[in-house]
Amino acid sequence: MTILCPLPAGFQTAATACGVKNAGSDKLDLALFVSDRPATAAGVFTTNLVCGAPVKVSRERLPRPTARAVVINSGNSNACTGDQGLADARAMTERVAKHLGCAGEDVLVCSTGVIGRPLPMDRLNKGIDVAAPKLSSSAEDFLRAAQAMMTTDTVSKQAHRLVMVGGKSVHVSGVCKGAAMIAPNMATMLGVIMTDARLTTDDAARILRAAVADSFNCISVDGHESTSDSVILLANGAAGVEPEHFGDRQAFEQAVTEVAAELAQAIIRDAEGASHFVTIDVQGARSREEAHRIAKSVADSPLVKTAICGADPNWGRIVSAVGYAGIPMREEDISLTVNGISLYERGQPVPFDEKAASTSMRSRREVDIVLTLTLGEASIRYWTSDLTKEYVELNADYTT
Amino acid sequence: MTILCPLPAGFQTAATACGVKNAGSDKLDLALFVSDRPATAAGVFTTNLVCGAPVKVSRERLPRPTARAVVINSGNSNACTGDQGLADARAMTERVAKHLGCAGEDVLVCSTGVIGRPLPMDRLNKGIDVAAPKLSSSAEDFLRAAQAMMTTDTVSKQAHRLVMVGGKSVHVSGVCKGAAMIAPNMATMLGVIMTDARLTTDDAARILRAAVADSFNCISVDGHESTSDSVILLANGAAGVEPEHFGDRQAFEQAVTEVAAELAQAIIRDAEGASHFVTIDVQGARSREEAHRIAKSVADSPLVKTAICGADPNWGRIVSAVGYAGIPMREEDISLTVNGISLYERGQPVPFDEKAASTSMRSRREVDIVLTLTLGEASIRYWTSDLTKEYVELNADYTT
Repeated sequence: MTILCPLPAGFQTAATACGVKNAGSDKLDLALFVSDRPATAAGVFTTNLVCGAPVKVSRERLPRPTARAVVINSGNSNACTGDQGLADARAMTERVAKHLGCAGEDVLVCSTGVIGRPLPMDRLNKGIDVAAPKLSSSAEDFLRAAQAMMTTDTVSKQAHRLVMVGGKSVHVSGVCKGAAMIAPNMATMLGVIMTDARLTTDDAARILRAAVADSFNCISVDGHESTSDSVILLANGAAGVEPEHFGDRQAFEQAVTEVAAELAQAIIRDAEGASHFVTIDVQGARSREEAHRIAKSVADSPLVKTAICGADPNWGRIVSAVGYAGIPMREEDISLTVNGISLYERGQPVPFDEKAASTSMRSRREVDIVLTLTLGEASIRYWTSDLTKEYVELNADYTT
Repeated sequence: MTILCPLPAGFQTAATACGVKNAGSDKLDLALFVSDRPATAAGVFTTNLVCGAPVKVSRERLPRPTARAVVINSGNSNACTGDQGLADARAMTERVAKHLGCAGEDVLVCSTGVIGRPLPMDRLNKGIDVAAPKLSSSAEDFLRAAQAMMTTDTVSKQAHRLVMVGGKSVHVSGVCKGAAMIAPNMATMLGVIMTDARLTTDDAARILRAAVADSFNCISVDGHESTSDSVILLANGAAGVEPEHFGDRQAFEQAVTEVAAELAQAIIRDAEGASHFVTIDVQGARSREEAHRIAKSVADSPLVKTAICGADPNWGRIVSAVGYAGIPMREEDISLTVNGISLYERGQPVPFDEKAASTSMRSRREVDIVLTLTLGEASIRYWTSDLTKEYVELNADYTT
């Protein structure tokens, strides 16, 4: 069963197989996301200093009030490709712009896939020429566009919210790809969020930043930050309303955050080789930043991840990962529950039924870790996956 | 074939099986390292805020000029055990002190093993009473003491250097345990370095700090910092000389650093499930700290580690791990060789024979990664292991 996801008004998509993934293959690897009118656009990108040419090109164009499209290819990340890579990324946007009758700068670009190899521009150009005339507003084509972004993903990832703004219904539709990084690909997370609300560039940038902070920046599969991570928000105003009043703004921003969070969680649910979906709640921290560092320290520990894989309620690994997160605290400040079972309270181990705890971890895919501190009022929710033999297999058993 | 390692003059060791690992088992789990006269002692300990009771007890006693012994048990880390744990750690030192006729404060203590469970003090006390009368200066007993520290280690770890100081020969003998952390144990690295040179407490502290910085602080198996890591230096002066002159000081400090580095490398060679021993050289960094952060970022990436496991010369993973280390640089500042093969030069991929590179990684256990930057003059050498299915198996397939 495939659940379809509608597009907001004034948006169209197209997808095609142009042979970037494999020459001659019919695997979708090129997607277009197009607004029929100038859209306000904002972006959030990887902070990795080694970043792909498309990141450099899109980043310098955002935010802007006149964006028309995002062009995305999978199969080649166009990263570590020097000046030729930059020229190729710009050429992709120019080619799309010619079809749409807009400036090249109004087109954004993302690429994901193998690193360090020049893009096959002849095939990509042909693909753009094939896809552009097929733009459509159908949910089926939106799904195909989502599929065209996939690399090691096993499922396509879309999310949608409908929200009332100024008495009118406004759509927020998002799409993303990501499942960690796998050889030989430099996999990545790419996301596009489209809405028919009208936004100023300032609002678009602010709303996207806030949504990403609570979603894509709160997930980790393997702690390895990609060279290509990109999330782009397009707001084309086709619904004829702007979230101006406080209630409307709140509802709209929540819709964007929910779409981003649903997409981020979908990445973790599809994490390479994962057998558990882990939610880490850190409560009672001094600040959101400190809560984030603690959650990430726990999420990135291979020992925590393997314990979860083995359904082992090994609280010592979790508590010690808190201890080396670099946040000043005493052991007495830490309490821990896993799947609702109290394991550690104010610095003291709590006697518990190890068998029942292990069974609760083995019998379901979800594991909930709640760390309650006594340092302040800040909290964060973070998502990660476990570390399995399948992850190692996927990432090691590629041979050149 | 077992290579024996001599003890410095004036040192004795003893080991016994007292049933901390498993009641009634004959597995060695208690070791004593004793100086026949007051020794200058210094220590370096885990920076994890969640740390074992023995760490707290030993740390507050160091440095000191009158240490007599280190007592070490394996099988139980006495961490996260509250006030009882502190009392037990102190009681262990008191028990040893009574046998030696010294103050309790002159005995240091280390524990490694399962976390969060009270020590079986009756068995430990008996063990101390059995071991203390058996103290000996033989290399065979020193080996047994090394074995008594082991948890998931598959081999015992000792190192020795003989160095001329003031015309006399001085011994530096070290012993350690460690192979990452494994369920249900909170494994750890513990080390004791003994020398018959005479040192001031200031010198002992400084020399140990420098040696640890170039050895135990330059290794990572899984990036998870233990609650119990401890390295203790004992210098008893039995050789009758102090390294006073510049040349002597240099030679002596190098001997201590070499012993520490050999022990640290032995931990990596024994890393859980590892199939490769990886040396990461970072050169041309602005400072040693920046070089250290870059090396650690590469060493801790599960994607770099799985690529090495799979003999995949996946340079994109290494370069991108440099990119997110948080050190300001441009792609053009980075060059990379693996096993002497140039893969990336000044921000540009270098065409190379992938098959030959992969074969060089598959055919030997050692992998040499050299990252050359154009930022400054600082460098570091760092050691790590790869990430294999066996590591996951060892750490996940324990069930409570």
